[in-house]
Amino acid sequence: MTNRRQFLSKAGAIALGLGMVGRGQAASVPEAPTQSLAATQPPLAPHAGRPYNPVVTLNGWTLPWRMKNGWKEFHLVAEPVQREIAPGMIANLWGYNGQSPGPTIECVEGDRVRIFVTNKLPEHTTVHWHGILLPSGMDGVGGLTQPQIPAGKTFVYEFEMKKSGTFMYHPHADEMVQMAMGMLGSIVVHPKNPNLHRVDRDFIFLANAFDIDPGSYTPRVNTMTDFNLWCWNSRAFPGIDPIVARTGDKVRIRMGNLTMTNHPMHLHGYDFEVTGTDGGWVPKSARWPEVTTDIAVGQMRAIEFDAIYPGDWAFHCHKSHHTMNAMGHAVPNMIGVNQREVAAKINNLIPDYMAMGEKGMAEMAEMEMPLPDNTLPMMTGQGPFGAVEMGGMFTVVKVRDKVKTGEYKNPGWYRHPAGTVASEWKGELPDMSRK
Amino acid sequence: MTNRRQFLSKAGAIALGLGMVGRGQAASVPEAPTQSLAATQPPLAPHAGRPYNPVVTLNGWTLPWRMKNGWKEFHLVAEPVQREIAPGMIANLWGYNGQSPGPTIECVEGDRVRIFVTNKLPEHTTVHWHGILLPSGMDGVGGLTQPQIPAGKTFVYEFEMKKSGTFMYHPHADEMVQMAMGMLGSIVVHPKNPNLHRVDRDFIFLANAFDIDPGSYTPRVNTMTDFNLWCWNSRAFPGIDPIVARTGDKVRIRMGNLTMTNHPMHLHGYDFEVTGTDGGWVPKSARWPEVTTDIAVGQMRAIEFDAIYPGDWAFHCHKSHHTMNAMGHAVPNMIGVNQREVAAKINNLIPDYMAMGEKGMAEMAEMEMPLPDNTLPMMTGQGPFGAVEMGGMFTVVKVRDKVKTGEYKNPGWYRHPAGTVASEWKGELPDMSRK
Amino acid sequence: MTNRRQFLSKAGAIALGLGMVGRGQAASVPEAPTQSLAATQPPLAPHAGRPYNPVVTLNGWTLPWRMKNGWKEFHLVAEPVQREIAPGMIANLWGYNGQSPGPTIECVEGDRVRIFVTNKLPEHTTVHWHGILLPSGMDGVGGLTQPQIPAGKTFVYEFEMKKSGTFMYHPHADEMVQMAMGMLGSIVVHPKNPNLHRVDRDFIFLANAFDIDPGSYTPRVNTMTDFNLWCWNSRAFPGIDPIVARTGDKVRIRMGNLTMTNHPMHLHGYDFEVTGTDGGWVPKSARWPEVTTDIAVGQMRAIEFDAIYPGDWAFHCHKSHHTMNAMGHAVPNMIGVNQREVAAKINNLIPDYMAMGEKGMAEMAEMEMPLPDNTLPMMTGQGPFGAVEMGGMFTVVKVRDKVKTGEYKNPGWYRHPAGTVASEWKGELPDMSRK
Repeated sequence: MTNRRQFLSKAGAIALGLGMVGRGQAASVPEAPTQSLAATQPPLAPHAGRPYNPVVTLNGWTLPWRMKNGWKEFHLVAEPVQREIAPGMIANLWGYNGQSPGPTIECVEGDRVRIFVTNKLPEHTTVHWHGILLPSGMDGVGGLTQPQIPAGKTFVYEFEMKKSGTFMYHPHADEMVQMAMGMLGSIVVHPKNPNLHRVDRDFIFLANAFDIDPGSYTPRVNTMTDFNLWCWNSRAFPGIDPIVARTGDKVRIRMGNLTMTNHPMHLHGYDFEVTGTDGGWVPKSARWPEVTTDIAVGQMRAIEFDAIYPGDWAFHCHKSHHTMNAMGHAVPNMIGVNQREVAAKINNLIPDYMAMGEKGMAEMAEMEMPLPDNTLPMMTGQGPFGAVEMGGMFTVVKVRDKVKTGEYKNPGWYRHPAGTVASEWKGELPDMSRK
Repeated sequence: MTNRRQFLSKAGAIALGLGMVGRGQAASVPEAPTQSLAATQPPLAPHAGRPYNPVVTLNGWTLPWRMKNGWKEFHLVAEPVQREIAPGMIANLWGYNGQSPGPTIECVEGDRVRIFVTNKLPEHTTVHWHGILLPSGMDGVGGLTQPQIPAGKTFVYEFEMKKSGTFMYHPHADEMVQMAMGMLGSIVVHPKNPNLHRVDRDFIFLANAFDIDPGSYTPRVNTMTDFNLWCWNSRAFPGIDPIVARTGDKVRIRMGNLTMTNHPMHLHGYDFEVTGTDGGWVPKSARWPEVTTDIAVGQMRAIEFDAIYPGDWAFHCHKSHHTMNAMGHAVPNMIGVNQREVAAKINNLIPDYMAMGEKGMAEMAEMEMPLPDNTLPMMTGQGPFGAVEMGGMFTVVKVRDKVKTGEYKNPGWYRHPAGTVASEWKGELPDMSRK
Repeated sequence: MTNRRQFLSKAGAIALGLGMVGRGQAASVPEAPTQSLAATQPPLAPHAGRPYNPVVTLNGWTLPWRMKNGWKEFHLVAEPVQREIAPGMIANLWGYNGQSPGPTIECVEGDRVRIFVTNKLPEHTTVHWHGILLPSGMDGVGGLTQPQIPAGKTFVYEFEMKKSGTFMYHPHADEMVQMAMGMLGSIVVHPKNPNLHRVDRDFIFLANAFDIDPGSYTPRVNTMTDFNLWCWNSRAFPGIDPIVARTGDKVRIRMGNLTMTNHPMHLHGYDFEVTGTDGGWVPKSARWPEVTTDIAVGQMRAIEFDAIYPGDWAFHCHKSHHTMNAMGHAVPNMIGVNQREVAAKINNLIPDYMAMGEKGMAEMAEMEMPLPDNTLPMMTGQGPFGAVEMGGMFTVVKVRDKVKTGEYKNPGWYRHPAGTVASEWKGELPDMSRK
């Protein structure tokens, strides 16, 4: 649920630079709405300014704004948050306005925006507006283009959105730590002409990764490669909502990557084209047909396809470990080894040891293994035909015929209830096994 | 050698779903040919149906099929296999029809195919047809689009090949484990018009990786990044056959990646273009000139070049560790350190310690180091001028003039004898050092 | 400073192959200039042959050459070197002509080049000319296309530069070790027509990585993924010089990657296009707009942009750990934990343990932490507004208006003093915070 809270100006706030909000200005700072839910929220239709077709943030929301003297004003609050990674696991993260990731910022090409950033973290921060063309002093690189925003202070960024596209924001201050703690958010700048690059469904999310020891709540921030929670918008399967479309819809999915490795995003059942990056729109002549687009760190990719094939289409990072939840990577292979007698002894030596099946590991997704508190199963999820044995960066693109199912009561948007997992999809699958 | 074995229907087989083969159907299941060799097999010319120019599977083979009432019928058997990674090393893997990778499936745009999949693994499995446009129920995602195929059962997939291109197949069931054990295979759908995208030589392979402890035979299936055997079609240099062409041939190499990291494939002596992906053919206007194409996990790339420069051209993943065989990554650097006196002491502490040269490591490729059983040397291979000091994802594109050498007795295909290693190339190199 | 040293022919040198320089030839080998500084050197204008606009090698230099009977003759000496990674840290590396990386080799399309390679390493080596179209015998793959060059010997390579572009050179002998020790260099072949692909500023560098334990000087050469020094041309921030341009300049930055992972290079404030690869020039129709270009291992990318926005624009690899210097990746997260009392005890157990802030890690960039000798701080650098908290693959593209600043005394080139760090930029920043 989105709440509104009044910005509380610190009586002792002192302007440290041109951008810092001083005592006299504090009264004019806009409200900072906050979000307590991890479910995908309905798109935020514009209430003023140029019209546009809003995006849907996967397991996220869009930041409300106000118009003031021709400027769109937003208010981000950097702060510690709690995030449900998936039902059964909560993480202590840093984020914006109550959640990690922060809310999506949406505006229109040509808009002048003013973004107040209040720092409620225990250390300084900044916000870098990745991909946006703006004056150097607004670029948000702590120490280089602005002073750091101290704890308790508010900095204001002002710039014009020169071009449409898909961008993101994140700190450029103690950057490795603050991104590892969950600080990131999406930005969409819609074209002035709402018929340009028009689609029927427009989704957005960012890939991020955490290293949270089983049974604990706070990420290890120094991990370079050995992450154990591979997320989209700080959610892991089965916590990631499905991406839904009606048969025939033109669908765009905008994705970014703020992890430490490439994520090759693979869509079943369709080929697609990358139509946009955080650098702009890709000319038609330059596009490749793909079923997997590799998104490098610090890149955004918008893919588009016509949803002409009904069905449940897996959509996931193709690195097999990135569709698993927390697990040990040094566990020996026990295929063919009768290990029941030694399992107890091994557990004495390796506390997080999970005995692996003599026949493979599928039995682990089916059995009820005891897990530490606040820990997701390594492989999980129930589909209409049984265990889907997935985790991490996995969801389903559900393309439904208009006639066969009545689930789209709100024709503009399918609102997925909070906490719904794959098991609730049961029964929705049209029989296409002999189509 | 390709053998034919009769499909043995289990008397107790029970149809568990639409796709499961029941008792009554078992008699009509086609034979499942099997392969015992790791050497590149001659291409399989089509005996029926639309004509096409078959591909050559590097260190692999193509699955024979039969026509039945207008359908091409194939039979894959998922099962434990033994694979020679290179002469001197055997691995216990899981694969299809006797080998890992499974045989290449070839057909033609517009073909209707029926693929029987028999599961002889100790756990359930499925087959996902990566990149193919097909009905959702045929997509092979266990739990989501079909029930898992239990051990001992057969599932039948049926779909039409809507477009030509380069694709692959692999399990979507206990996926991380089954792919880490070697389950994968290539698919080529040829264009209806055999003059479209025509080349003179057409090769295909998939990159995969294993983590097999020195002296052992079975991969560790939980490894996420620290693999020690970097393979093409489950072979490591010097076990990978050369790619051969005559001067002037138009050559295509189709490659896919089912490891856990990107592989930048680098060809010496030529620049090339990527002409196709698993999403389709790349338009001419969109192609880049490259000498190294980065293949992300879950991607396929077809590269093409005119073999106008004769010679021995190295072709390899450009990550230097991926052209090495099993080694320890935490061994200290001894360059400049006289270590002969302490080597014995270190060996007492670190059992797999290999003393590294005081002068570099080239001496290790030249000396006869004692190795554990079933272990490939870290750097190996003999070329016409001495030790090539390679391993892993490395081979040679051998472009030969038609006149200078008589090795192409069969003009349509150069059959490389099983087990041939680089040392046997000696003498074949035209003198081009002062061309 | 560039010095000239006479090539000392070994009295005992014996020609081991066609390419080896024998006793009779030694007198005609050109001088091998050497370089002792890590600062960016002025571009080397051509003194003979076809005209071209020389490049600037970031923290490097260009190898002088001589014309002899229509051939451009160069002399590379492979040898142990000392390299200042950044002020405060020296590494014992292997390189060419006194530095790692080796000097940039520049020539013109159509040039015939003769490159003498003298091996002063303790083990054999070769040089592979990555991306160059040349006869197989000149390709530099030890054992495959030539005999290894033994220690103390000289090999001569001869070929014609068939096409313009951006290439590199590195050993293809004990390759993993020799590249991990710092052996690599850039090659630029300019177009015959100097107006083709013309820019105002043309920079080049290669990404490489080292694993040097804190307090030590020599890289661990077996490291596969866990590097701790992420460099451009063997330099880490704040040791990397800025990239400077005047407002309105057309700027090209050519970059290559010889590490073990992809580097997504991100430029602030601009979008750009990749206009060239090591395979050739990218057709206009095929280019994508980007703000981050992912450079795979063994790839080169030339990006271009018009420097129309003045300011200090961060330019870095977007993997957050690659803009940090040496650190431990397994240190636990102490955010929210009062650890002062236990720090001393932990230090007894983990010698390289650095207590992490209870509030995040920014305080570590600000405080004066005691470091082992010859070790760079994890996060460092001072900008005009305070600590920039960076390391590794980070620098600043400084775009300056012609009128506002007098720093360009030499209009053709801004020579950055050796050892200058970010703190000296203070005061140079035009006030653009409210432009």
